[in-house]
Amino acid sequence: MTKTKKRGGRSPEAKLEELKLRLREINDLGAAGALLSWDQQTYMPDGGADARGRQRAMLGRLSHERSVDAALGKLIDDLAPYADGLPYDSDDASLVRIARRDFEKAIKVPPEFVARSSALGSASYDAWTRAKPDNDFARLVPFLEKTIALSREYAGYFAPYQDIADPLIDDADPGMTTASIRTLFADLRGELVPIVHAVAAQATIDDSCLHGSFAEPRQIEFDLSVVEQIGYDRRRGRLDKTHHPFCTKFSIGDVRITTRVDETDVSQALFTTVHETGHALYEQGVSAALEGTPLGWGTSSGVHESQSRLWENVVGRSRGFWVNFFPALKKVFPDQLDSVPLETFYRAINKVERSLIRTEADELTYNLHIMLRCDLELQMLAGSLAVKDLPDAWRARMQADLGLEPPDDRNGCLQDVHWYSGLIGGAFQSYTIGNILSAQFHAAAIDAHPDIPREIERGRFATLHGWLEDRIYRHGRKYEPNELIARTTGGPLSMRPYLAYLRGKYGELYRLPPPHPHQKASQKTS
Amino acid sequence: MTKTKKRGGRSPEAKLEELKLRLREINDLGAAGALLSWDQQTYMPDGGADARGRQRAMLGRLSHERSVDAALGKLIDDLAPYADGLPYDSDDASLVRIARRDFEKAIKVPPEFVARSSALGSASYDAWTRAKPDNDFARLVPFLEKTIALSREYAGYFAPYQDIADPLIDDADPGMTTASIRTLFADLRGELVPIVHAVAAQATIDDSCLHGSFAEPRQIEFDLSVVEQIGYDRRRGRLDKTHHPFCTKFSIGDVRITTRVDETDVSQALFTTVHETGHALYEQGVSAALEGTPLGWGTSSGVHESQSRLWENVVGRSRGFWVNFFPALKKVFPDQLDSVPLETFYRAINKVERSLIRTEADELTYNLHIMLRCDLELQMLAGSLAVKDLPDAWRARMQADLGLEPPDDRNGCLQDVHWYSGLIGGAFQSYTIGNILSAQFHAAAIDAHPDIPREIERGRFATLHGWLEDRIYRHGRKYEPNELIARTTGGPLSMRPYLAYLRGKYGELYRLPPPHPHQKASQKTS
Repeated sequence: MTKTKKRGGRSPEAKLEELKLRLREINDLGAAGALLSWDQQTYMPDGGADARGRQRAMLGRLSHERSVDAALGKLIDDLAPYADGLPYDSDDASLVRIARRDFEKAIKVPPEFVARSSALGSASYDAWTRAKPDNDFARLVPFLEKTIALSREYAGYFAPYQDIADPLIDDADPGMTTASIRTLFADLRGELVPIVHAVAAQATIDDSCLHGSFAEPRQIEFDLSVVEQIGYDRRRGRLDKTHHPFCTKFSIGDVRITTRVDETDVSQALFTTVHETGHALYEQGVSAALEGTPLGWGTSSGVHESQSRLWENVVGRSRGFWVNFFPALKKVFPDQLDSVPLETFYRAINKVERSLIRTEADELTYNLHIMLRCDLELQMLAGSLAVKDLPDAWRARMQADLGLEPPDDRNGCLQDVHWYSGLIGGAFQSYTIGNILSAQFHAAAIDAHPDIPREIERGRFATLHGWLEDRIYRHGRKYEPNELIARTTGGPLSMRPYLAYLRGKYGELYRLPPPHPHQKASQKTS
Repeated sequence: MTKTKKRGGRSPEAKLEELKLRLREINDLGAAGALLSWDQQTYMPDGGADARGRQRAMLGRLSHERSVDAALGKLIDDLAPYADGLPYDSDDASLVRIARRDFEKAIKVPPEFVARSSALGSASYDAWTRAKPDNDFARLVPFLEKTIALSREYAGYFAPYQDIADPLIDDADPGMTTASIRTLFADLRGELVPIVHAVAAQATIDDSCLHGSFAEPRQIEFDLSVVEQIGYDRRRGRLDKTHHPFCTKFSIGDVRITTRVDETDVSQALFTTVHETGHALYEQGVSAALEGTPLGWGTSSGVHESQSRLWENVVGRSRGFWVNFFPALKKVFPDQLDSVPLETFYRAINKVERSLIRTEADELTYNLHIMLRCDLELQMLAGSLAVKDLPDAWRARMQADLGLEPPDDRNGCLQDVHWYSGLIGGAFQSYTIGNILSAQFHAAAIDAHPDIPREIERGRFATLHGWLEDRIYRHGRKYEPNELIARTTGGPLSMRPYLAYLRGKYGELYRLPPPHPHQKASQKTS
């Protein structure tokens, strides 16, 4: 970063080359940091933690210094006329466009804020890990109050905005706003709560076939065979175990997933692995031409989540998926599953059960957990909910939406780490956006290729995978979510396919009253 | 690295603080690079190789830029008077002294040379991987000629010197010179060749008890139990499998080793693991106060190798070591070893066999392989041996020293990667220096604590480990090898303890004529 030779007379191509070099260095510092993090969660011995924290912070600082370098901004400015002359969706025009967006966001936040926020995040996380087992919300109130103040300060750097949470949401889901999400979620909640209540009134599904003794190595071997058949390229990835499963990318040739195995429940590692594979298919599918640039990643948290949910739920928990895979699973665990009919297994993996804990929630109730968090954090950010009143607000909303009340805050507002990590707002909405999009993208794929469900019953995933790769994955960050949704589905983000999917699937599973006629057309998506 | 505030008026303490910050960043960039390399050799999928190479090069470049930053040199200069006022062996005086040595070496080499050397290294390595299976030395001649020219150019940056190889040797073993090594090795060879020939005249040892079927997981579990008992701290380390075993350090709290398992030979992984543990004990033993500084590492390749060889050979292949561990090994592999007497096992792991391949050589003949390489590379560097004549020179020397002649160059001068990696000279001597020092340090430890051999028979390693930690490990790079040897043994580097050790051990094993009286005193070292 100490190049000082005169830039004035250089060609746009030479400047573009320098831009790519600078961006690649930022990208690669991030990738190195990601490996340090992956290793910390997989294989690092305990003794390595202190130095590892220091080394990750160092890489983060070097990357940030480069991201806000004035010379980078100058290059981007210089290249504007050149990029304007290229087709909008060309690699180079897109690169300059996205680099500008990233740069303009990055320079708005003062380095000292980044340091303060990071320090609060560490202290708050540390306090949370100790306060949660003690069920001691009071101890976290000062941290949460500081976190809200800091989150508001962060948003302030991006003023003017319509809503204080807009800049936070835009970081995860560019182009989405508080207003649009609030409306969307209110509508969705209005539709979902009655379905959940109707399901709760029916007899519980028996999922005892999922429980028993399932040896870890055989689970992992089977799960790997499933995700490989779906399309996960193991020459460009690998599976390891971690406490919190995730997907991480060091390059287009190295996209790793992790899982967590419960030897008493065959479905836990399985669906976790398929979920992370959805993320991994997205990252493995980005065009090689975008490798090492800021375009070489999934475009947003919500679109990313749409892929994990599409593969985990819409596909992975479908009847057709198990028409293909259940015989193979029976071969791996004959003693446990030989006498289990496919239909029993299919019903078990789609059991709906209202519960207190988000991460244990089923597909149907999951969104109620998310929307509760989104609404409460928006209220706290807006100042209409005081931190000290959070536990009460949480209980009231759980009662309203799920008819349950947590016995303590450990099972309520202390359960997730997100709010205790130094910044609040912008993290949760992506999960439900992802659920909504999973069905919308899937429906579009089926519209284009109606044979997909029958192919899946025969273990063939190439048509669906190919369509997603062509329409979504390969573009990386070239298109913002709303652009991508319009290009891919021909319309804006819509919850209709998602509701049709849920009504169709759970209507049948729980013998609910039939859906309205206009939703019938999409029932083939289930 | 963009600090620009005025430095003139700052206190030495403030400057020292900045020096430590700068050096820590260099250290941590190196540690991050080391993790990228470890991962590449353990778990990285094949698809990650291209980007990984790019990312490692980037970290190397950032580290190098910082190592030659003029501001770093200025800081070191400014701190000279302050450091001169501190005790020579204080942490801070040592830090300034070693930082100066590193800086002055680093700035002598132009960045464009580093790039050229690295490019030649890649091309040459690539050519070697393809030429070796084809036994095609001719194809490598141009690479080797360029490598010698480049190595001479490298040495030239450090002129004046007495011998062209001095700067190359000094990089690995500071303070050692071509002249001193040439004399030492000539003397050692003069003593060793007759011993090897005398051993070869005796009946071969039967090592069939080492061969059979030894399941990998049980080997690894046993090997880990051995190195943990020796003193390897697994909370600050771990063991993985790689094609080429190594030890690597990311911080004082994370020192990892790797091994290679042969399920048909119980001794391969075992002694490889103990060897790497020797390196790891050194790195785990460096004082925590030196963490993240250039002092926080072993002082030289030769001293490092002395620790791997001390633990692998002098201790690990001693009779007393197996008095303790053999019963445990029998429990792990009862079918294979229950009927094997300790003495049979002890003889088997010390079998001497003249062979063509260095990495398969036993303790006694190993040095002849090394000295052959050192002499030939010195001749090539001096211009007295033409590259095209290398295969003949190799064969002649093998015949003279080991009485063997390689059937082809694959088993001759193509076997090792070292010469085909872009730089020649300075790599091989450390192995034999390490062997010599392993016995010299061990003898000094026994002089101080004569009970060590009996403790080891009872599985107690704390006295030996503690002595090495106190006298060698904790000092890191504070003392150059010759200083350290003098402080630790009271004299200069000497091959006498090593020869006494070899004569004592192999004299008994092969019933050779008894050693001269003056060597008897050190026989307890075996």
